[in-house]
Amino acid sequence: MDHLYNRIESSFRKQGLMQTLNASLDRVESGLVQISCGFHDGLSQQHGYFHAGVLTSIVDSACGYAAATMAADDKEVLSVEFKINFLKPANTPRVTAIGKVIQAGRTLTVCEGNVFDATGEKLIARMTATIIRV
Amino acid sequence: MDHLYNRIESSFRKQGLMQTLNASLDRVESGLVQISCGFHDGLSQQHGYFHAGVLTSIVDSACGYAAATMAADDKEVLSVEFKINFLKPANTPRVTAIGKVIQAGRTLTVCEGNVFDATGEKLIARMTATIIRV
Amino acid sequence: MDHLYNRIESSFRKQGLMQTLNASLDRVESGLVQISCGFHDGLSQQHGYFHAGVLTSIVDSACGYAAATMAADDKEVLSVEFKINFLKPANTPRVTAIGKVIQAGRTLTVCEGNVFDATGEKLIARMTATIIRV
Amino acid sequence: MDHLYNRIESSFRKQGLMQTLNASLDRVESGLVQISCGFHDGLSQQHGYFHAGVLTSIVDSACGYAAATMAADDKEVLSVEFKINFLKPANTPRVTAIGKVIQAGRTLTVCEGNVFDATGEKLIARMTATIIRV
Repeated sequence: MDHLYNRIESSFRKQGLMQTLNASLDRVESGLVQISCGFHDGLSQQHGYFHAGVLTSIVDSACGYAAATMAADDKEVLSVEFKINFLKPANTPRVTAIGKVIQAGRTLTVCEGNVFDATGEKLIARMTATIIRV
Repeated sequence: MDHLYNRIESSFRKQGLMQTLNASLDRVESGLVQISCGFHDGLSQQHGYFHAGVLTSIVDSACGYAAATMAADDKEVLSVEFKINFLKPANTPRVTAIGKVIQAGRTLTVCEGNVFDATGEKLIARMTATIIRV
Repeated sequence: MDHLYNRIESSFRKQGLMQTLNASLDRVESGLVQISCGFHDGLSQQHGYFHAGVLTSIVDSACGYAAATMAADDKEVLSVEFKINFLKPANTPRVTAIGKVIQAGRTLTVCEGNVFDATGEKLIARMTATIIRV
Repeated sequence: MDHLYNRIESSFRKQGLMQTLNASLDRVESGLVQISCGFHDGLSQQHGYFHAGVLTSIVDSACGYAAATMAADDKEVLSVEFKINFLKPANTPRVTAIGKVIQAGRTLTVCEGNVFDATGEKLIARMTATIIRV
């Protein structure tokens, strides 16, 4: 495992929420991070699908870490804001979120996040996130 | 406890994520719902504050239920999309989310959501959500 | 006319688009700016109402200038991003946009923008904007 | 010119704002519409670049028409909301907006809009729009 993965993974392990959601850090590249999460009852909304908040939490982390891969090692990043559209019901055993950088500036980075179902083929949510280096 | 509270609370109890986050349904009025949540390590980001995903999850549910209070009993609501700005770091022992309807249409309802710190005075996040009746 | 109004108005006059839209700068206070615009055929969408782009343009400028009122005289501001919901059809002879600061930080300012119809009572659009000082 | 182009172009010509901005309808395909616009002083912000409102207006129309290409001939579409990030300053002689459908539902369609500079290679703004059939 390379330096970049280790740096992101070390922060990921400190995010208590990622453990609560039983999320895993699948992939770390320069400008791209993938996080996924299997379904269990503790992650549901009222119809027994993934709650929108779960999708949002993992894709927010994926976007933030995608931005972090392009910042210096000693820099932290924070979500300024994001917007997310829910395209399909999340009735699937696993969701995979991919955050990727679409514009990296000195202060702000803009990322696109996509959440896919267990087949990897159905897009169930799309995020655009603005992230700041601090 | 009145009919409106009972209707919303019955759905709230089915949201597994709300129990995982240890969130509570504090207030239900026509067009307004409040949900709060105390901090514990399982809800943190890497600096030990509330993860943005927790704030987002409870304020998304608060907005959805605020919209639901203005729909017929047999109607369900779903989040179409939302946008959230994080205004201040969420280093506080408790966060309270208030969702309120700003425009209720036949098909779509638009809600504003605000997340406050434990004092109730510091605004830490602001959401605008679009919700559909199905 | 006071210093603050003059400073904003001097920039407003340089925005060619505001003149093209025949927009007027109605009000400038610390943290709040109002811009309005009368209807003419050159501002329409296909049904003869105000085009969403007109509402968006004036409320974007109103939010940017609201942020500028809280920055030092020699600082410029730029829109990082915004989100806008269209709540009602804009079939009204005049639209009035009010931008106000909801959080002013060192680097970023978050504003809420509201667009009202000619009566001043009907809310037809709501914006949340993130603005950066440069 | 085909039926689809003619249908969209007939609505485009009724948008007074598109004429005021001197915008042109460049391309119409199923699920994709392109609109561009040359710079003139009447479209500027205070630094002499394109005003964010111009970019937003043409990409909003491009997204709306992209959604319309996938609706029945007798259906109209309206923007429910959109979010746009401004990635680079728009100091370029021409901006080109491409709206494309990423999810077409029965009631709602979600589009991604991208605005490019005159070279066609620099992405200067990214929109996500929610559109309703009425």
